[in-house]
Amino acid sequence: MSESSFWHKYHERYHQLRSHVCIGLDSQLDKLPPSVQDSANPIREFNLAIIAATRDYATAYKPNLAFYLADGLRGLTALYETVASIPEDIPIILDCKVGDIGSTMAAYVHAFFKDLKVDAITINPLMGADVLKPLLEIESSFAFALALTSNPSAQDFFHAHELKQAIPRWMQDYPVQRLGAVVGATQVADLLAMRQSLPQRLFLIPGVGAQGGDLQAVLTHAIDSESEPRILINSSRGIIFASSGEDYAEAAGAAARQLFEACKS
Amino acid sequence: MSESSFWHKYHERYHQLRSHVCIGLDSQLDKLPPSVQDSANPIREFNLAIIAATRDYATAYKPNLAFYLADGLRGLTALYETVASIPEDIPIILDCKVGDIGSTMAAYVHAFFKDLKVDAITINPLMGADVLKPLLEIESSFAFALALTSNPSAQDFFHAHELKQAIPRWMQDYPVQRLGAVVGATQVADLLAMRQSLPQRLFLIPGVGAQGGDLQAVLTHAIDSESEPRILINSSRGIIFASSGEDYAEAAGAAARQLFEACKS
Repeated sequence: MSESSFWHKYHERYHQLRSHVCIGLDSQLDKLPPSVQDSANPIREFNLAIIAATRDYATAYKPNLAFYLADGLRGLTALYETVASIPEDIPIILDCKVGDIGSTMAAYVHAFFKDLKVDAITINPLMGADVLKPLLEIESSFAFALALTSNPSAQDFFHAHELKQAIPRWMQDYPVQRLGAVVGATQVADLLAMRQSLPQRLFLIPGVGAQGGDLQAVLTHAIDSESEPRILINSSRGIIFASSGEDYAEAAGAAARQLFEACKS
Repeated sequence: MSESSFWHKYHERYHQLRSHVCIGLDSQLDKLPPSVQDSANPIREFNLAIIAATRDYATAYKPNLAFYLADGLRGLTALYETVASIPEDIPIILDCKVGDIGSTMAAYVHAFFKDLKVDAITINPLMGADVLKPLLEIESSFAFALALTSNPSAQDFFHAHELKQAIPRWMQDYPVQRLGAVVGATQVADLLAMRQSLPQRLFLIPGVGAQGGDLQAVLTHAIDSESEPRILINSSRGIIFASSGEDYAEAAGAAARQLFEACKS
């Protein structure tokens, strides 16, 4: 992979830190502390302080598109400035779960990789292989496809319709350097089954923080037989909203450091 | 339903026009005619001319989020101004295919219904019922869930894993006034099967224009037994890019009128 690729950047960053923490920037406007609410762009202000406090512990950052769009043009400005402010050596994953085809997907890919300039995105694979085509045309790009989620209604389709077997099988057609999997972690048995069918695949694992989940079980398969990293453990609210007061940045730094230490391998 | 709801507005508009055309505003920057490329905000400029030329024939408009995000802050500005410029009595469906849960989905719902102020959105139902919860909390809102798409790789999951039966079954738990279905139209047999399992449901049908599809077959089930409309036939590129020259607005108006007449019922 080229040096500008997510895959390269991610491995470089892992070997620098030897930990597996992805910090989710779910910067919800009405949850920001009072001191930043008065600034010209509260989300930008908040994120810049959070990044300064947590950057030593982040193997990746993951801004979540929804919270930026919810603040309109100011929110999108905050997203651009957040991405621009993250140190060059830390990969950025945009959580957007887009899953369209043809010129629409090409437009999203342009927006996120060429204009916003993130390193990876999350995608929804429901529409099939056509979703991946515009992504794979950009050589440095990377996508994490929703493979299994841990919310209660994952029962509706993922579990009831064999998608938790079908999606991993479908992913095997694509190189590990270009396509990872979002795997919800509240069911350890599911995570292990997913790992068995996708032994080399990079997993982005939400739900270890606020939603429960078993950190030790998750870490069992953190590195592969060649000591290369194969998981990113995401925590969003557990880090960025560790304190709702004026010590929010300091508290986020402490929470990030704690998870960083717990996720060493 | 309340008078501010999509359902109410859509029915009022249908009874005014007695046609079924949704005009997709897939306003891709590099396909816009030379004369608008030089303006301060090309997509806004283009859309305003398209809307002026087509408004008499549109039962609904459907801007597609991807093409606005692809032009960054200027593109999002164009989206806000486009939505604001569409006559109050024409319902607006944002094509965004979001499908997330909890506070993330609540943030999208806030962004689109409260801030941007569209009347309906498209959603991806893969994560299950949790996707709908934040939507249903806004009484006037409406969502079209992806029920079947017509792209080649619809084979990967929709057809191969019974989702084209499972998603319609799943939709039956929700009122027709709040939840519609996006149904790809290239396979007429699929469309008829979908109609049989969801007799009263509003279908948003793409693919009749540029992607082929059989308009007459689609129109067979356009109105229900009580003469209420049950389909919206979307055309995007076939209308807005009917001409790539300086007569683009005039050509769009003619193409919209032609489809409007063909879709009378």
